[in-house]
Amino acid sequence: MQVALVQIDDYGPWTTTPAPRRETDLQSLQASLFADFAEFVGEYDGYAFYGRFDNMYAVANRPDPTAFARFQRLVRNQYPVTVSVAVGRGETPAAAMGVASDRLQEAGSAQNGQRTEVLAIGDTDGSRPATGPLTIAHFDVVDVTSSLTDRENAIDVTRTIRRAALELETHLRDRHDCLTHFVGGDNVIAVCPMVSADTFQAAIDHVRAETGLELQVGVGHDRTAHAAGEEAKYALETCRATGDRIRGAETLPAED
Amino acid sequence: MQVALVQIDDYGPWTTTPAPRRETDLQSLQASLFADFAEFVGEYDGYAFYGRFDNMYAVANRPDPTAFARFQRLVRNQYPVTVSVAVGRGETPAAAMGVASDRLQEAGSAQNGQRTEVLAIGDTDGSRPATGPLTIAHFDVVDVTSSLTDRENAIDVTRTIRRAALELETHLRDRHDCLTHFVGGDNVIAVCPMVSADTFQAAIDHVRAETGLELQVGVGHDRTAHAAGEEAKYALETCRATGDRIRGAETLPAED
Amino acid sequence: MQVALVQIDDYGPWTTTPAPRRETDLQSLQASLFADFAEFVGEYDGYAFYGRFDNMYAVANRPDPTAFARFQRLVRNQYPVTVSVAVGRGETPAAAMGVASDRLQEAGSAQNGQRTEVLAIGDTDGSRPATGPLTIAHFDVVDVTSSLTDRENAIDVTRTIRRAALELETHLRDRHDCLTHFVGGDNVIAVCPMVSADTFQAAIDHVRAETGLELQVGVGHDRTAHAAGEEAKYALETCRATGDRIRGAETLPAED
Amino acid sequence: MQVALVQIDDYGPWTTTPAPRRETDLQSLQASLFADFAEFVGEYDGYAFYGRFDNMYAVANRPDPTAFARFQRLVRNQYPVTVSVAVGRGETPAAAMGVASDRLQEAGSAQNGQRTEVLAIGDTDGSRPATGPLTIAHFDVVDVTSSLTDRENAIDVTRTIRRAALELETHLRDRHDCLTHFVGGDNVIAVCPMVSADTFQAAIDHVRAETGLELQVGVGHDRTAHAAGEEAKYALETCRATGDRIRGAETLPAED
Repeated sequence: MQVALVQIDDYGPWTTTPAPRRETDLQSLQASLFADFAEFVGEYDGYAFYGRFDNMYAVANRPDPTAFARFQRLVRNQYPVTVSVAVGRGETPAAAMGVASDRLQEAGSAQNGQRTEVLAIGDTDGSRPATGPLTIAHFDVVDVTSSLTDRENAIDVTRTIRRAALELETHLRDRHDCLTHFVGGDNVIAVCPMVSADTFQAAIDHVRAETGLELQVGVGHDRTAHAAGEEAKYALETCRATGDRIRGAETLPAED
Repeated sequence: MQVALVQIDDYGPWTTTPAPRRETDLQSLQASLFADFAEFVGEYDGYAFYGRFDNMYAVANRPDPTAFARFQRLVRNQYPVTVSVAVGRGETPAAAMGVASDRLQEAGSAQNGQRTEVLAIGDTDGSRPATGPLTIAHFDVVDVTSSLTDRENAIDVTRTIRRAALELETHLRDRHDCLTHFVGGDNVIAVCPMVSADTFQAAIDHVRAETGLELQVGVGHDRTAHAAGEEAKYALETCRATGDRIRGAETLPAED
Repeated sequence: MQVALVQIDDYGPWTTTPAPRRETDLQSLQASLFADFAEFVGEYDGYAFYGRFDNMYAVANRPDPTAFARFQRLVRNQYPVTVSVAVGRGETPAAAMGVASDRLQEAGSAQNGQRTEVLAIGDTDGSRPATGPLTIAHFDVVDVTSSLTDRENAIDVTRTIRRAALELETHLRDRHDCLTHFVGGDNVIAVCPMVSADTFQAAIDHVRAETGLELQVGVGHDRTAHAAGEEAKYALETCRATGDRIRGAETLPAED
Repeated sequence: MQVALVQIDDYGPWTTTPAPRRETDLQSLQASLFADFAEFVGEYDGYAFYGRFDNMYAVANRPDPTAFARFQRLVRNQYPVTVSVAVGRGETPAAAMGVASDRLQEAGSAQNGQRTEVLAIGDTDGSRPATGPLTIAHFDVVDVTSSLTDRENAIDVTRTIRRAALELETHLRDRHDCLTHFVGGDNVIAVCPMVSADTFQAAIDHVRAETGLELQVGVGHDRTAHAAGEEAKYALETCRATGDRIRGAETLPAED
């Protein structure tokens, strides 16, 4: 599995130099940068996550790691900031991101004004595509509209869903080395290594126990995040139609 | 205090009709929409928060509530979706958002395909500006770069900061009716009603106890979110320079 | 009438430093900057024109000239370039743009690396709104789809329409001091001072004689470019419906 | 040579339905769409031109014609409009665009509300890359800043440069079947078939005779528009440094 970690170079200092910049401009800048990143990654059939905005992720098996130099160029030519990118591969999303994180850290501090536009891909042999396939689990909250959105104070709805997402993320990270991320609305996507079907039931049970929220999940498995994710989306549609809580996991290959 | 709640009309169904849409396109769409919203709100010296992306917020005292019709027009003319907007006023951010949430819910369900482009402002008298002033508390994590960003796996850094943000948000919501939101990097902004200076020490203590993370905070107080937030940013700069954990709160008016 | 001239600071050198930048990135940058400018100007009910992209215009009576500092801030915080802005007022669009051009030129050369973010508004008294009203004439080509778009090589269609736009622009500039600009498709907008109704017939006749293209025009007159332009758009719809070549001009006030 | 013609489906009616849409929103929409198109085409090392905005072009040898379906999807998912795309190949840019235009016209009228998202690529065999190489000529105006930008009324500067661009475009279209387009500032790019070096001298002479403006040009020749265009940019830099009026053309292969 191949992941990329994008980090805005020396961003913290930039946001306050020569004086603190207007917050709404920073929000707009960060969101625009992520919008462009999502498009870029999408062209390679990967998935992009906004992370902390100044540190964004991609799960993208397809591109040669050097392709991210194109994103660096795009940012340099269209934004007031530059980005460094590290690429890592591993058996699990967390392991791959660990490699990427290490590479970026070795290249210099996030607030080292001299470290700009690093492309830290180690000795990754781009001509050998990342080993796949990967599993995408696309979760959402059962009946979120009627039980939350149409009923509660919006800030509490957000908080409730964020807590569920965080519990899910923590559970799947600690047990299975997944990369799990909230993606808007009531949707949470987990990028998983080879896991068994009952992983998802346990995750749903955990979130229900911790937060009272009932999740459902569609699971897909393919060579790219997009292809696996599309399968997962269709499986989730089936959950919505049938009332099943998990669909798609039955087709996962058996673990070793 | 005046807040606005922006909700994409019937968004869930749209994302899967006629078939599930590509995830990276949705990510890009949501982020672009928020980028435009942040700019729009910024023109009125407000603050914008991405919420769940399909439900976004603004804290914006200045505009006449009908001004949000301009944002609705902008969205209609530039995006494949439309938005409904509710505006609420109240003594606290949570109370104001409660009013806005009620108004939007009364106008119809978030997934009612017939409810489009509602502007739910009730009998708010736009000619009377929202009562202010308001307090902005701008938090960040002490030494985040050296202790986390430059050291840990990026997905764990994000998770750690997200948990701190969620604990902070919960604490400030439950005790003080604040609207608290992660805004990127290690930054969390709380929009507060009239609170006393020791509110912030208690919040920092709570987050440290729950997560082990040490926060610092700059506080500002003014008639608009931007003006108060700018004060808060300068105060936070002073924290960074001096090692103080709280700056700016000493100037808050006494509570009644 | 009040106009603004926005100029990217030292842009030519930037595009080739340290090496020529990728053309598609420059195209994207320029277009994004204009997209943001159009939104900004639209908030003040003005009209924006892309000009040469590195030199863009607005016709915007409403804002206090100092408001353009907000656009400068937005650009500084979101783009890799900065902009200078000059504002001018005059009885005609050309006269107003002459004032703005003079002010910017006096502030320094477009390629003076030291001249950045100038806001050249002279002694314009922003508290006194620009004198209006103004006249907008919105032209298009009669039956462009059936006669050109659906029939000819696309590069020749563009060239034919561009030539008509240029002849129209030249005619209206030389005789009436208008600011005339192609705005996409087969649409050309002229911002005019007080002119008589037969001005438009003469312009249509001129373009027909020079290029063989038959234009029609809707005319509107109001205190802002948006309001006058909206009238013009409705009037042009009436031309389309009735076959008239000029609508709206009959309501123009008599010239002195 | 392979070109693409992108046409917004049924755009004219959309801009006035149910009522004329705000002009600045349309300007912003069109510019944003082109910004995304330029990025998309740039990923394939092509060149993009805004044409009439509702009809945009690309010169892009590399992608399989079916790749433009990705751009159609991106537009569908992020914009309130959809686009049809035709791809054509030919010995010259004009011939290729003629093929593309024919294909789109055969698929239905630009204002046929039923013709949406056509991808008209005929029997183009995408597995066989477009024959190249191609020649890019990148023109600009000698001393434009000192003679025009820093001296004249901005609307007259634009008009003067636009007239030169139009004369150049017409000359190169009529004699050599080039696709020539203004790209901002004082820059005009011509995509050329195999031409001899004296083509460019004749073009410069023609523009001088018609408009009094003195152009210089850098010429490049390679398998993609980006690669040829980059050569052309470097050659133009040499013109600027040396005072030569034409550079790069000496390396063109001899015509048959």
